[in-house]
Amino acid sequence: MIIVLKAKATDKEIKEVADKIERMGLKPHVSKGVERTIIGAIGDESLLKEDQLKAMPIVEKVMPIMKPYKLVSREFKNEGTVIKIGNTKIGSKEIIVMAGPCAVESEEQMISVAKAAKKAGAKLLRGGAFKPRTSPYSFQGMGEEGLQLLAKARKVTGLPIVTEVMTIEDVPLVADYADVLQIGTRNAQNYNLLRAVGKINKPVLLKRGLASTLKEFLMAAEYIMSEGNHKVILCERGIRTFCTYTRNTLDLNIIPVLKKETHLPVIVDPSHGTGRYDIVNPMSKASIAAGADGLMIEVHPNPQEATSDGDQSLNPVQFAKLMRELKPVAKAVGRKL
Amino acid sequence: MIIVLKAKATDKEIKEVADKIERMGLKPHVSKGVERTIIGAIGDESLLKEDQLKAMPIVEKVMPIMKPYKLVSREFKNEGTVIKIGNTKIGSKEIIVMAGPCAVESEEQMISVAKAAKKAGAKLLRGGAFKPRTSPYSFQGMGEEGLQLLAKARKVTGLPIVTEVMTIEDVPLVADYADVLQIGTRNAQNYNLLRAVGKINKPVLLKRGLASTLKEFLMAAEYIMSEGNHKVILCERGIRTFCTYTRNTLDLNIIPVLKKETHLPVIVDPSHGTGRYDIVNPMSKASIAAGADGLMIEVHPNPQEATSDGDQSLNPVQFAKLMRELKPVAKAVGRKL
Amino acid sequence: MIIVLKAKATDKEIKEVADKIERMGLKPHVSKGVERTIIGAIGDESLLKEDQLKAMPIVEKVMPIMKPYKLVSREFKNEGTVIKIGNTKIGSKEIIVMAGPCAVESEEQMISVAKAAKKAGAKLLRGGAFKPRTSPYSFQGMGEEGLQLLAKARKVTGLPIVTEVMTIEDVPLVADYADVLQIGTRNAQNYNLLRAVGKINKPVLLKRGLASTLKEFLMAAEYIMSEGNHKVILCERGIRTFCTYTRNTLDLNIIPVLKKETHLPVIVDPSHGTGRYDIVNPMSKASIAAGADGLMIEVHPNPQEATSDGDQSLNPVQFAKLMRELKPVAKAVGRKL
Amino acid sequence: MIIVLKAKATDKEIKEVADKIERMGLKPHVSKGVERTIIGAIGDESLLKEDQLKAMPIVEKVMPIMKPYKLVSREFKNEGTVIKIGNTKIGSKEIIVMAGPCAVESEEQMISVAKAAKKAGAKLLRGGAFKPRTSPYSFQGMGEEGLQLLAKARKVTGLPIVTEVMTIEDVPLVADYADVLQIGTRNAQNYNLLRAVGKINKPVLLKRGLASTLKEFLMAAEYIMSEGNHKVILCERGIRTFCTYTRNTLDLNIIPVLKKETHLPVIVDPSHGTGRYDIVNPMSKASIAAGADGLMIEVHPNPQEATSDGDQSLNPVQFAKLMRELKPVAKAVGRKL
Repeated sequence: MIIVLKAKATDKEIKEVADKIERMGLKPHVSKGVERTIIGAIGDESLLKEDQLKAMPIVEKVMPIMKPYKLVSREFKNEGTVIKIGNTKIGSKEIIVMAGPCAVESEEQMISVAKAAKKAGAKLLRGGAFKPRTSPYSFQGMGEEGLQLLAKARKVTGLPIVTEVMTIEDVPLVADYADVLQIGTRNAQNYNLLRAVGKINKPVLLKRGLASTLKEFLMAAEYIMSEGNHKVILCERGIRTFCTYTRNTLDLNIIPVLKKETHLPVIVDPSHGTGRYDIVNPMSKASIAAGADGLMIEVHPNPQEATSDGDQSLNPVQFAKLMRELKPVAKAVGRKL
Repeated sequence: MIIVLKAKATDKEIKEVADKIERMGLKPHVSKGVERTIIGAIGDESLLKEDQLKAMPIVEKVMPIMKPYKLVSREFKNEGTVIKIGNTKIGSKEIIVMAGPCAVESEEQMISVAKAAKKAGAKLLRGGAFKPRTSPYSFQGMGEEGLQLLAKARKVTGLPIVTEVMTIEDVPLVADYADVLQIGTRNAQNYNLLRAVGKINKPVLLKRGLASTLKEFLMAAEYIMSEGNHKVILCERGIRTFCTYTRNTLDLNIIPVLKKETHLPVIVDPSHGTGRYDIVNPMSKASIAAGADGLMIEVHPNPQEATSDGDQSLNPVQFAKLMRELKPVAKAVGRKL
Repeated sequence: MIIVLKAKATDKEIKEVADKIERMGLKPHVSKGVERTIIGAIGDESLLKEDQLKAMPIVEKVMPIMKPYKLVSREFKNEGTVIKIGNTKIGSKEIIVMAGPCAVESEEQMISVAKAAKKAGAKLLRGGAFKPRTSPYSFQGMGEEGLQLLAKARKVTGLPIVTEVMTIEDVPLVADYADVLQIGTRNAQNYNLLRAVGKINKPVLLKRGLASTLKEFLMAAEYIMSEGNHKVILCERGIRTFCTYTRNTLDLNIIPVLKKETHLPVIVDPSHGTGRYDIVNPMSKASIAAGADGLMIEVHPNPQEATSDGDQSLNPVQFAKLMRELKPVAKAVGRKL
Repeated sequence: MIIVLKAKATDKEIKEVADKIERMGLKPHVSKGVERTIIGAIGDESLLKEDQLKAMPIVEKVMPIMKPYKLVSREFKNEGTVIKIGNTKIGSKEIIVMAGPCAVESEEQMISVAKAAKKAGAKLLRGGAFKPRTSPYSFQGMGEEGLQLLAKARKVTGLPIVTEVMTIEDVPLVADYADVLQIGTRNAQNYNLLRAVGKINKPVLLKRGLASTLKEFLMAAEYIMSEGNHKVILCERGIRTFCTYTRNTLDLNIIPVLKKETHLPVIVDPSHGTGRYDIVNPMSKASIAAGADGLMIEVHPNPQEATSDGDQSLNPVQFAKLMRELKPVAKAVGRKL
């Protein structure tokens, strides 16, 4: 860590900062320049309490050198992590598409979507049984009944299922049914929930928070991994910006940056990332072209009757068309689908 | 709700939208203009599924007329809500200041801060026993032991205590000790937790999410109130923007807007809202001048030794100075402190 | 336009608003609901002064129905605009790549880049002679000498040139040399400059402002077109968000949305949109996959010696590799390159 | 400047970076840690080309130590700058309020507003003769005729006038009439215009750009000062964030931060900063409490008939009330009004 002192720091003040660094267990290295004195703290940076140093009035700024994430880091593990779900491998050369409705609504709906999704080439089935809704008066999901319907759809189609878990108490229940547990954007920094899914032995699909920085996103994954579960799939799903013509701003820049920083697989959810069914198609292609390992797409048998997110769902015909059109894009960037 | 159709909508398409509105239980009112056909949906807007309408290709946009929040709304309850905590009333003419360390660290620390806070005029004591930290490797709080230390500090000083609860399981425990339960910014849309604190009979201090809109903030309060607990205190604590010279951007605009939209009391946390102890003083004054009912301020006996957020904490001397300087500001806007 | 009145508007207040609408030349259509009275203003919405209506205390909100842009709009002109520059057509099936250094530095540099760009398949040469720099102490561009070097490079390679114009006075000079005039992001709302380039008969490449909404971006194009110049190329180049791991956040969502709203061609500048040479490659592919008509890429013979933006420039080898890899992506989405 | 190299940089790579720093005229100081090698560049940091260093593949990040602004900096000039305009001093103990309409519309309007503004205690008169409007079809201001009306209003009331200049060509004309020249938010990075007003001998009111960082804001002032004009008044006027309940998000955090970084006076424009006349009053008070040296307030004789920004303008009665209520707030923070 580099500690920059304010102009005209006295020798006494410099010593105070150096002493503090030493008390924290690192070696201070003072460098007096013409305009600023800089102190390098040599040693294990994790011992250094940045806030305490910033709290010293003579300190102008504190600049960390090391990255705060460990287990998720590509420095820690250089080769890309491949996560096996049934016969499917996320993080491999193959692009994995997960498809299904925002919310599980009925057996008929789920079976119908699952068949359509499978036929079109999806490898996992998504569907929400527990739904985080902005309004307490909106439909909150079918709960366990929804999980059962997902399981039925899996039985019929063979597609593994991914579904959201919203509370620690529900982790065992959801883990009983699901092949992949999803942590939603609103729980992206619900650290106790992250720890809870870190203790089970199933893959976790971790959505980026609406305002998560790269560091916060990776530290959320680190929470899961620090409990022992290393099967984490990162999912970009749009961030909140000043733009209102889309529900969120899909930040595809993060895809290649994540690929450099972490060994974990990265997928994109263009349905939430745009909030508009009419641009899900091009943004799916863009996601693959940017280097994503997969996609999560909302598909509903009849979006105009969906209980939730109908405006961002594709119907089965649109989804099948998308899957056909994605194939050459995947191939163009050396992947397959 | 107003539904705007795309240019050149045919009579058949107009009828389909109108029929759909009717099936939802409202009365469609079609108005054909020169360039656009508009359909007003007359009746209970909450019956209308906006997403389903947007999913119709002929629909250009859907514009809600009504506000989605009810119990929190000033239309629902015109007079401002005053919440009693011990001998203190939040939402009254008096400005209430809550002070204390980011994290409870030791008995000595808590008693010392509590005395200093009380002496300077604080009416509540804050302190975190359960700490949401970005890194799994950072200090995560003392847990129940921290709650016990808070209780001791209350016993010594008589100051009611406010402390954060992070999980549903901990609600009974925290409610046992605390006078006010705090929901942190990372849990601002953790709906199950909001419901859980909605079922107890203690005031809840609800922090705004880092990227929460006005609507989302009020809907989070609506979650709590919809379960029966109407004692909600709203807390602005900074939002995430492109600015990096402060930890967050304190959005004081929201204070007078909230005062129009809701009857609930509103306070400000300038410590998190700035992340810089050296500007907490002016931003505290600005918060009061903007119409806040109170403040939440981080105070630590020795910020340079704090386990968390030392860089945004005042020491007791700085806090006492702030309290003295706040008095005339409160008076200038017709309040007292 | 729809005017929503506050709850409990009296008949007198309703009449005042209706009368005001009538005085503006539109026909008010009052609709009293249970909770709100709504007034539709029928007629030419451009006559309506939204601000004046909002200034009436009884008005809760004003919701425009019509889009404010005209000439740029796809409703105004349905077929996509194709702009011819030399033998090249932007907005056609062909993806057009513009390449060159951030700043013109020397004859050797320009000729060398121009040849490399041409060889790799670029169709236009970019290079800045007038440079908007954050610091007054940074290199500000070579001015007219830079334009002359660009012209030389064009002579040698046959590539048309695109270069930025920063002031009204310079428009004739730059138009003398350039085939396409660029309006930079910092001048995206410099309306007098937009008008000035609207009066010449050369294509204009209009970059989106760092914080421009869709509407503001299109209205900037409308400024140019309203003066008679309909040859406008829109360029997404990243917006400012909370993300700091890239210089800007490339908003690819806007590509398909622009394609719906306007008939103008749309290109992407991934060099500024990322600020990182090491992710320009995937983001270029993503831009094409999202539907862009072209790209603008910074290429420098030796980025480590560039006077400006070396960190986001490709070297000729990297650029040639990018061009090879873009071909199959273009083909995969039905375009050619 | 600190240059952090990627893990496992070889001696050869370290030497290349060190050599490059030396060629730039600084002295490299290599420090090999366990996990990273860091190179400090000792000497005149302005010689160092950050982009070129970042363009080297072995470089992980480059961290500047020095601030890029000079003349504006409080390190350069410690005592606060006081700017005299007529009998008024901005930057002194006195809070200066500038008031007037968004746009000059007629003699009657200007004289009426000017008298009301003066009577209520305003010290300067504002009014736009050249108006930057989002739409080319909106009223663009009265031009020179507007300047003449401003001059008349000054003659009648004695109030100095502040008005916007939008182009370099208009600088002499506007300087002929105005006492203070305003640079609007859309021209906050129009560097040639900044240079042009840097060459005249009249105070410049520089508005912050909609997405300007602290550094960009101060560097814009540096542009003006680097040409010799040191009379620059900084004006916070709201930034663009995800919030839509106000036109912009007033960033009052920047007031105390600017006061630390620069010696220049700082004022706030709560009219644009909120876009809502109904919250201008509390946000004006908050601005003063946060430490602003003055305010710029839109006042119109009849906001419901204003050609521009009626929704954010106070009428004379509201303005007089505001001025009365500001007095005790100013006093409470040791200022006068």
